[in-house]
Amino acid sequence: MGEREDENVDIEIEVGMERQGSGALSDDKELSSLREPLLILHQTKRTNNTSQLAVVGANVCSIESLDYEIIENGLFKQDWRSRADTEIFQYVFCKWTLALLIGLSTGLVGFFNNIAVENIAGFKLMFTNNLMLKENFGHVGRFRLPTSLAQMALPPLTGVGGGYFQAFAAYAGCNMVLASAAAALCAYIAPAAAGSGIPEVKAYLNGIDAHSMLAPSTLFVKIFGSIFGVAAGFVVGKEGPMVHTGACIASLLGQGGSHKYGLTWKWLRYFKNDRDRRDLITCGAAAGVAAAFRAPVGGVLFALEEITSWWRSALLWRTFFTTAVVAVVLRGFIVFCRGGKCGLFGEGGLIMFDVNSVNPTYTTPDLLAVIFLGVIGGFLGSLYNYLVDKVLRTYSTINERGPFFKILLVITISLLTSCCSYGLPWLSQCFPCPAHLSDQCPNVGRYENYKNFQCPPNHYNDLASLFMTTNDNAIHNLFSSGSDKKFHLSTLIVFFAATYFLGIITYGIAVPSGLFIPVILAGASYGRLLGNILGSLSNVDVGFFALLGAASFLGGTMRMTVSLCVILLELTNNLLMLPLVMLVLLISKTVADCFNKGVYDQIVKIKGLPYLEAHAEPYMRHLVASDVVSGALITFSGVEKVGTILYALRTMKHNGFPVIDEPPFTDAPQLYGLVLRSHLLVLLKGKKFTKQRVMTGSNMMFNANDFAKAGSGKGVKLEDLDINEEEMEMYVDLHPITNTCPYTVVETMSLAKAAVLFRQLGLRHLLVVPKTPGVRSFSPSLSCKDTCLVEAHSS
Amino acid sequence: MGEREDENVDIEIEVGMERQGSGALSDDKELSSLREPLLILHQTKRTNNTSQLAVVGANVCSIESLDYEIIENGLFKQDWRSRADTEIFQYVFCKWTLALLIGLSTGLVGFFNNIAVENIAGFKLMFTNNLMLKENFGHVGRFRLPTSLAQMALPPLTGVGGGYFQAFAAYAGCNMVLASAAAALCAYIAPAAAGSGIPEVKAYLNGIDAHSMLAPSTLFVKIFGSIFGVAAGFVVGKEGPMVHTGACIASLLGQGGSHKYGLTWKWLRYFKNDRDRRDLITCGAAAGVAAAFRAPVGGVLFALEEITSWWRSALLWRTFFTTAVVAVVLRGFIVFCRGGKCGLFGEGGLIMFDVNSVNPTYTTPDLLAVIFLGVIGGFLGSLYNYLVDKVLRTYSTINERGPFFKILLVITISLLTSCCSYGLPWLSQCFPCPAHLSDQCPNVGRYENYKNFQCPPNHYNDLASLFMTTNDNAIHNLFSSGSDKKFHLSTLIVFFAATYFLGIITYGIAVPSGLFIPVILAGASYGRLLGNILGSLSNVDVGFFALLGAASFLGGTMRMTVSLCVILLELTNNLLMLPLVMLVLLISKTVADCFNKGVYDQIVKIKGLPYLEAHAEPYMRHLVASDVVSGALITFSGVEKVGTILYALRTMKHNGFPVIDEPPFTDAPQLYGLVLRSHLLVLLKGKKFTKQRVMTGSNMMFNANDFAKAGSGKGVKLEDLDINEEEMEMYVDLHPITNTCPYTVVETMSLAKAAVLFRQLGLRHLLVVPKTPGVRSFSPSLSCKDTCLVEAHSS
Repeated sequence: MGEREDENVDIEIEVGMERQGSGALSDDKELSSLREPLLILHQTKRTNNTSQLAVVGANVCSIESLDYEIIENGLFKQDWRSRADTEIFQYVFCKWTLALLIGLSTGLVGFFNNIAVENIAGFKLMFTNNLMLKENFGHVGRFRLPTSLAQMALPPLTGVGGGYFQAFAAYAGCNMVLASAAAALCAYIAPAAAGSGIPEVKAYLNGIDAHSMLAPSTLFVKIFGSIFGVAAGFVVGKEGPMVHTGACIASLLGQGGSHKYGLTWKWLRYFKNDRDRRDLITCGAAAGVAAAFRAPVGGVLFALEEITSWWRSALLWRTFFTTAVVAVVLRGFIVFCRGGKCGLFGEGGLIMFDVNSVNPTYTTPDLLAVIFLGVIGGFLGSLYNYLVDKVLRTYSTINERGPFFKILLVITISLLTSCCSYGLPWLSQCFPCPAHLSDQCPNVGRYENYKNFQCPPNHYNDLASLFMTTNDNAIHNLFSSGSDKKFHLSTLIVFFAATYFLGIITYGIAVPSGLFIPVILAGASYGRLLGNILGSLSNVDVGFFALLGAASFLGGTMRMTVSLCVILLELTNNLLMLPLVMLVLLISKTVADCFNKGVYDQIVKIKGLPYLEAHAEPYMRHLVASDVVSGALITFSGVEKVGTILYALRTMKHNGFPVIDEPPFTDAPQLYGLVLRSHLLVLLKGKKFTKQRVMTGSNMMFNANDFAKAGSGKGVKLEDLDINEEEMEMYVDLHPITNTCPYTVVETMSLAKAAVLFRQLGLRHLLVVPKTPGVRSFSPSLSCKDTCLVEAHSS
Repeated sequence: MGEREDENVDIEIEVGMERQGSGALSDDKELSSLREPLLILHQTKRTNNTSQLAVVGANVCSIESLDYEIIENGLFKQDWRSRADTEIFQYVFCKWTLALLIGLSTGLVGFFNNIAVENIAGFKLMFTNNLMLKENFGHVGRFRLPTSLAQMALPPLTGVGGGYFQAFAAYAGCNMVLASAAAALCAYIAPAAAGSGIPEVKAYLNGIDAHSMLAPSTLFVKIFGSIFGVAAGFVVGKEGPMVHTGACIASLLGQGGSHKYGLTWKWLRYFKNDRDRRDLITCGAAAGVAAAFRAPVGGVLFALEEITSWWRSALLWRTFFTTAVVAVVLRGFIVFCRGGKCGLFGEGGLIMFDVNSVNPTYTTPDLLAVIFLGVIGGFLGSLYNYLVDKVLRTYSTINERGPFFKILLVITISLLTSCCSYGLPWLSQCFPCPAHLSDQCPNVGRYENYKNFQCPPNHYNDLASLFMTTNDNAIHNLFSSGSDKKFHLSTLIVFFAATYFLGIITYGIAVPSGLFIPVILAGASYGRLLGNILGSLSNVDVGFFALLGAASFLGGTMRMTVSLCVILLELTNNLLMLPLVMLVLLISKTVADCFNKGVYDQIVKIKGLPYLEAHAEPYMRHLVASDVVSGALITFSGVEKVGTILYALRTMKHNGFPVIDEPPFTDAPQLYGLVLRSHLLVLLKGKKFTKQRVMTGSNMMFNANDFAKAGSGKGVKLEDLDINEEEMEMYVDLHPITNTCPYTVVETMSLAKAAVLFRQLGLRHLLVVPKTPGVRSFSPSLSCKDTCLVEAHSS
């Protein structure tokens, strides 16, 4: 509530307010004489730069809106009526086939992503560990020490030998190369691929068509950049990027083929509209979550709760189908990989964090402990958001300087991360291995928890078990039951502090980076830390405390409830934990909501994406629709001169224009409907003009497909038109392409209700019609069209 | 699609069509001269009786609609502006407190319900079993046979002794008494409590305020009727009734206190509107599912997917909180009962069907088997719906004859059920007990699976293990892993056939009866049967096959996907089954959708509840809003004569009337807004009339609370008014109570888009305003108000 949210509302509304506030039109008489009878609330006009808007009265923001409204013009209606049952079957069949393909592709990419990360990171870690072992045990030069050798009483090295520097150089070097690769991809090929991607997908599904957000190049960079970034040891996840990847795949499949590459199919033509694309991209985003967490139900809920702005019940079913396909694909590959056919990929990555062994039994003091954990978690979560916000603003000034600076920043953070990962474990003591685990401790592999690091044989460094491994394994370690593994208090404090701050400074660099894993890492270490401290007071296992800590951080940063709960359940495969996880999520979300907004909402705002909130602001209840009327309005006559249309298209950036039927076509001027810029461009490109001002109707040799919405950034552009002087004087009939039933509100409609209408129906244009009859302006002497319009609509 | 769905749409629209089709107004000229410029799409006018409507032009259906629209009249706006921050806090605090209370109460009721059922049914079954054991082993007269006795080689009894008849009489008698009690409660106290209750709640949340649907008496009968009905051994569940119970509790708490019993609290006044009540009832319904299945996430999703028609994202969070409270309450009580403090209640009822031991591994042939299972399950599910529909129609003719016939029907079905349960196990052979289970087999308790029935010692009757137990335990048995328990092919065939048909003929009798358990019972036996048949071909466990069979039946009858999936997961506590369960649900829903609609949609239709579908029908795209204009329209002037208002209220049953401002208050007649019948009644009751026709404004000593929406069936009625002749000639100012911004559409708006608007915004009234200026009717000679209206709105 309050100031923060005010900035986020439909800025079109602010334009009107700005105008009134600025005094430019403060004279009431002037206002009433200039007031347009018809207002188009453009989503495209929303921008943060309101002062500019107040002058221009049109859009300055380069971000286009999507058209979700069902256009009901003569041409489309004719096309719709002519559709046979077989064509409806084609449509339904295509829709399900596309959902299947999205599921298959996202599942494949998710699997490929995991295999690549596990192998690259695994090789890097094994290489580093072996170099360290060499130093520890002399130049043995073997990957795994035979037990006999390990049992030899070699004296522990007290100083840091040259081999340790060699190991660090190898480790930091590998990280830096991978990080640079990811950064170069992001900086030079697709800058839109940096970051999580969830805010972008969220904005897209809110109705914003930002350039290159879902382009094929973005998809490419997202996949490979994410692999390199995660393998480079950054405190980032692959979850957010997977959501973006899924959405990109869906967008690519939903383009309705490609003329350029000859990939056209008649059946795909039905998908050339934003409504069906929106559905597909929702499926893609859900599939991404499902692939990232292997949580199919969680994926559907995540899409429902966080990502989408509009939801149809039919979508629930289709999304569910897509995520089910993802689950089946992933399962198939995991079975395939079980035999060691996938290199170092095995138990890591996709595998759930199986805390099934923990049987949560709790009493009232435990509940109090959990509530305390939730409150602190909520507070730390909102602090996380606050710091991410600050860091993002700082980084954006660096990133704006160019690709080179972007890469430099990435390398700096990579070095810092390497130093932390390699340096901090030296702070920890060496602990002797538990007696019953002599074959597992210490070891050099990736999965095992007992890292030898700098320690003598039969000893392990527990901080290295968290730092010198992949993030997934670190989480696995933190979630493991207390009886299996003991982390020391100092270890957890160091690890918590390191991941909390590394997570914050890593987000915002030019690398595809998810927020889930950093938050879960920090949250799990926080939870386990608290569990350790409360150890004697509580019966709850520390592994379960780690899970609750992760839940509290997730609730505190992302502010979701049901979807996070289900994702955590699907991750941990233990439904008995449900009540406590729910409780912690609710508490941490409530606490964090007192301070700031969710992290994705913040990022949407920082990125300048014009996001429409679900609720009208309280102040809107005091205004009516006519209070926010803006700028000079251009309208067309039912049969309009080509030159007039061209001039309007060139000078104004509106994407929709009202069409007014005038005498002789009607008795009196009246609103016929709304015509879209994109349709006008196609019409003008077709050059079916007439010399006389006559209605040609639908005999103009166009068909509905010509007007189908092309993919983002495609379609006829103003520069494509080539109209000569003679044609400028000719006429064209707009009736067949005019949407005859745009949504309208009366000018006295409360602004709050108009805004709810706008948002709930997913509109791009909303016409404001006058209520009072315009008797006073009924004189025929008025010639200016804008003034006539007063008459047309008020009469 | 097609004929079926057409009947279900907003009937108001059909009225218009009917009128055109009937030829009454087929003359185009007549139509245009009679066409109202303003049309109110009343939800209240929807009924199945279109021919009657076509004549009357007003509502004949007794079912009222709810007002979800935010009324923005002068009085409310003033009240809203004067609200301080503390009052907003009060509102938020109350909302969460109510959610908490709903969760607590529903959890308590759910627990009480389970304890009662388990104890009553348990006592009944133990009594019967002991009578049978007496017959088997002579008059031993002990509840549990000592092992030494059981090992004695008593010769098996070949004939049926008198003791068996005694046992049957006891069993059938208990059932009949319980059934009669349930039926008497339903027939005499609250007929609305019969059946599942989910369709009613669904209809309520669609915007229908049917009489007594959520009344306290319904709540009472629902709770106790459900306990008696389930304990009586009917093939019914307690799940549907629990949903209804939750909704009733929420409705009761959301009334904003009670003046009658002095239970008023200032803070509760904010809840005296249908919007907030809708939110609370959604929480209640979700809490009911959560309590019935102990599935909190499933509850939220069930509410989202099946029950609600409108969903706000804020609701997700509050619903989730409510179900979390239910989960915590239930968990607390189960821990409390673990020590045997709750009588026979122990492992049954609320306990999940723990199939955790089954580790589903499957190959391609298994997948094919599962797909086959899904297809047949979908087919059988839709057949189930078809038969339930037929049976319901038959029963409704019986039930209409009066309470006595209702009870008679219940007793008949009870007898039939008793005969099946007791009689059919005699068809089964006796099997020797497995050697390693000598202490469990045979037994007389409720939970154990090896029923002795008529068998000799050390033998058991596997059909009796399914029939002579509670439904919950039968499901538990069916879901149990194949290695634990073997059911024979003939047993499963008999049990499947019996439950399938008993389930169908039981729904519709005057007893609160859920549909989940019958469907799960039939589905699980079908799945296990198929698993037994395919036994050698498939690696999948028969217990898991039973679960998949239940899923396929649920998908085939109820047509939900995500929520059923989550509920099944929460019931069985094994997430590894997810992909196959998803697959089966999708297949069975797809197959069943080819034949008919979901069972709840069918019941809504049979009950004659006017349900508004989410999507506009295809034919609506060919019509415009003005095509469905109906009946003569009554409008009021801004300051209206009391007599006129009273006459209109008496003669018309409309619930909203447009208010037209006329000279001298405005230059020309213009639409001021819409006034509600309920507000008019309060206004007339207050008798703040004036002798002259003047605007009194808001100085009329009313405050916003006077106009707050009372609970269902309450509020000022027409009969409460006592207005004398003199007052009839006085005037009253309607401006302060008129909603100044009702939603409007232009008359040329496509009907499909108008319907989408109506449904998506949850409207009750939608004004249709003309587009063409009414110049031709601009003559001042017209005196009739209806004709003037043409002028008022078209000018």
